[in-house]
Amino acid sequence: MTTTSWVDGADSGPYGIDHLPYGVFSTAKDPAMRIGVRIGDQILDLRGLASGTFFLPWIRPAFHEHALNGFMAMGPPAWRLVRHQLTELLSDRRHQDQSATLLTPVAKARMHLPFTVADYVDFYASEEHATNLGRLFRPDSEPLLPNWKHLPVGYHGRAGTVVPSGTPIVRPRGQRKSKDAPVEFGPSARLDIEAEVGFVVGVGTELGTPVNPDDFTEHVFGAVLVNDWSARDIQAWEYVPLGPFLGKSFATSIGHWVTPLDALAGAKAAAPVQDPVPLDYLLESERYGYDLQMSVRWNGTEVSRPPFGGMYWTPAQMLAHMTVNGASLRTGDLYASGTVSGPGPAQRGSFLELTWGGKDPVDLGEGEARTFLEDGDTVIISATARGAEGGEIGLGDVRGTILPAVNLVPLPA
Amino acid sequence: MTTTSWVDGADSGPYGIDHLPYGVFSTAKDPAMRIGVRIGDQILDLRGLASGTFFLPWIRPAFHEHALNGFMAMGPPAWRLVRHQLTELLSDRRHQDQSATLLTPVAKARMHLPFTVADYVDFYASEEHATNLGRLFRPDSEPLLPNWKHLPVGYHGRAGTVVPSGTPIVRPRGQRKSKDAPVEFGPSARLDIEAEVGFVVGVGTELGTPVNPDDFTEHVFGAVLVNDWSARDIQAWEYVPLGPFLGKSFATSIGHWVTPLDALAGAKAAAPVQDPVPLDYLLESERYGYDLQMSVRWNGTEVSRPPFGGMYWTPAQMLAHMTVNGASLRTGDLYASGTVSGPGPAQRGSFLELTWGGKDPVDLGEGEARTFLEDGDTVIISATARGAEGGEIGLGDVRGTILPAVNLVPLPA
Repeated sequence: MTTTSWVDGADSGPYGIDHLPYGVFSTAKDPAMRIGVRIGDQILDLRGLASGTFFLPWIRPAFHEHALNGFMAMGPPAWRLVRHQLTELLSDRRHQDQSATLLTPVAKARMHLPFTVADYVDFYASEEHATNLGRLFRPDSEPLLPNWKHLPVGYHGRAGTVVPSGTPIVRPRGQRKSKDAPVEFGPSARLDIEAEVGFVVGVGTELGTPVNPDDFTEHVFGAVLVNDWSARDIQAWEYVPLGPFLGKSFATSIGHWVTPLDALAGAKAAAPVQDPVPLDYLLESERYGYDLQMSVRWNGTEVSRPPFGGMYWTPAQMLAHMTVNGASLRTGDLYASGTVSGPGPAQRGSFLELTWGGKDPVDLGEGEARTFLEDGDTVIISATARGAEGGEIGLGDVRGTILPAVNLVPLPA
Repeated sequence: MTTTSWVDGADSGPYGIDHLPYGVFSTAKDPAMRIGVRIGDQILDLRGLASGTFFLPWIRPAFHEHALNGFMAMGPPAWRLVRHQLTELLSDRRHQDQSATLLTPVAKARMHLPFTVADYVDFYASEEHATNLGRLFRPDSEPLLPNWKHLPVGYHGRAGTVVPSGTPIVRPRGQRKSKDAPVEFGPSARLDIEAEVGFVVGVGTELGTPVNPDDFTEHVFGAVLVNDWSARDIQAWEYVPLGPFLGKSFATSIGHWVTPLDALAGAKAAAPVQDPVPLDYLLESERYGYDLQMSVRWNGTEVSRPPFGGMYWTPAQMLAHMTVNGASLRTGDLYASGTVSGPGPAQRGSFLELTWGGKDPVDLGEGEARTFLEDGDTVIISATARGAEGGEIGLGDVRGTILPAVNLVPLPA
């Protein structure tokens, strides 16, 4: 028997009773940031619930915080218990009257960053994406670099510029250099997206204790969609030999709603077989990824459907790799998959790939064509997945609109 | 007339009245972490002072925190005022009796991370270091890459593994690959140091507002010494194309004491003339670095004296570059210079350079020679500088001892 919710319309949408993602919201009436869980088009106020006796006493303080970190740090037993209680509350009609006062329509809420980001790591885990970039940048050599199939390549990004979906993206300025031209300075002319999936660490570790890939669900709380905005011209000039820096650090957008891993249980799917077999510390007893169907809309036109299920490196492998040197984890660590690209031309998760380096414009309809982002453009990344009960859930969208570059630096005389 | 302190022995050492660096300490008797200022071999308890009427009411709460972030966020007026008050308190003998009860000997204190690290960025600002690495890794091409003289190359490191001086460093394990050999896994065989100087941001910025290099002292609170431990074999295999990751992220050590920029005023020195002239956003009205004489001791033997004054890119330029794309700053952001190396062979800030890629062992006396770090080795990085009144101050040492790698990962059956 499928569980249903008494909240109007919830059962037929992407935020049904089998999803229940967590976020942080405020309203005009009550501007305090507080934790809520989404059901249909409503947000259930968990601070309000925690003011009563609904949650166990040791759990309540976490829902008086302004971010999910305290709750995430409590670990799987608390996550499961709260999810179980919320499922019961929102499905059993006997709770409707007393709970309805704690519901706020999403349309009336302002959404904030759901958790305080500790460290932000970005991987490069799609074989198709890494291959496309290799072909574009190094047409005369093997597209994949020698290390790529041995380890999930990754790097640290700027945690302080991770912003919630909807935050306007000011076009970054910076240095760039075309072949045989002098160094130039100005607004990026090759502003791009990267459609990614991010994983949020709940339970941290001590320095010196690597995480086994089989312990993935003991540490990771949930998933969010990520748009790793990228200024390709800035990146191309700066990135040797220490990697991407200002080409990425101006902004990284994440969804408002953190989908608990338990809500993705129905989306688990076998990950690609790896050849060569990686080293022991990257081997999983049960190897799986998540079969998320992503969508990239550019000014309303869907331009790509990247398939997350085909990623070469799994979220568990990324976690194991990130810690194998003894690096500790903290609650709020965010690690993203890197651009999700599939084998098909309409499955690429960046415009660099979709337009093949800017050579093949994308048709947005009504005579509009694009290679890279123009001021005023809006990109929305979304994803759906099979819910735990067989229905479809939808991860929180990531959207952003490009604002023109501004010159706010008073230069020395 | 030179100001002197009534604290015994303070005037003749590196922590005289013209230094007054801030740190966070606790004691066996009172295990609460609290902020102190160092004078000679003593720590003055600022939480204790803030419990009375010594500081202005709006400043007091900052000294009840467990880290410097609150105080640093208050900006230059508060920094100057507190420094002025502390100078008076510790120099005027009339305050001796009442203040002496707030002094704790450094030998009895446990030191903690002085501030909560927000983002950690590492630059690559020494021309000699970048040239040495170019010669070692790319012997057949120009040692400096084309971008190096146009921008301060940098990348993000792992903020969560920044640790206070004295924290044991567990030798990291990871993947490595020698030419024509298969991929191997094991403890790093080329464990190295990088002697650096780090700058700590006090006053943050909003997203989209680049910082002018002339506003450096409006944002940066002070300086700490940094040891950016580096596993060269792990780094060499992983770093293309996204830069260093696990080769660095296992640990970065910083000194216990944050030296306020005001205490370094006497060490300001003209920075090298830049050719080509960089872009406008990197131009300073008054171009200067800090003339710090660094020292690297390996098991007690001084093996190098890197000169920080010769760095090609200044701390103000690094700050301007890091934000020119609109990236915001947060209180607690730490950015380090990259390895400090001078032109002389005994001025190199990494063992990779000192031993020229491991080919020329360093003599540590008594028949001991080294190329890279062995288990049990201890490295101490220290630095002295001209104080504001002409004497010599010494920045807080960064020390670390290497522990053997441990296998704590229960591998899947």
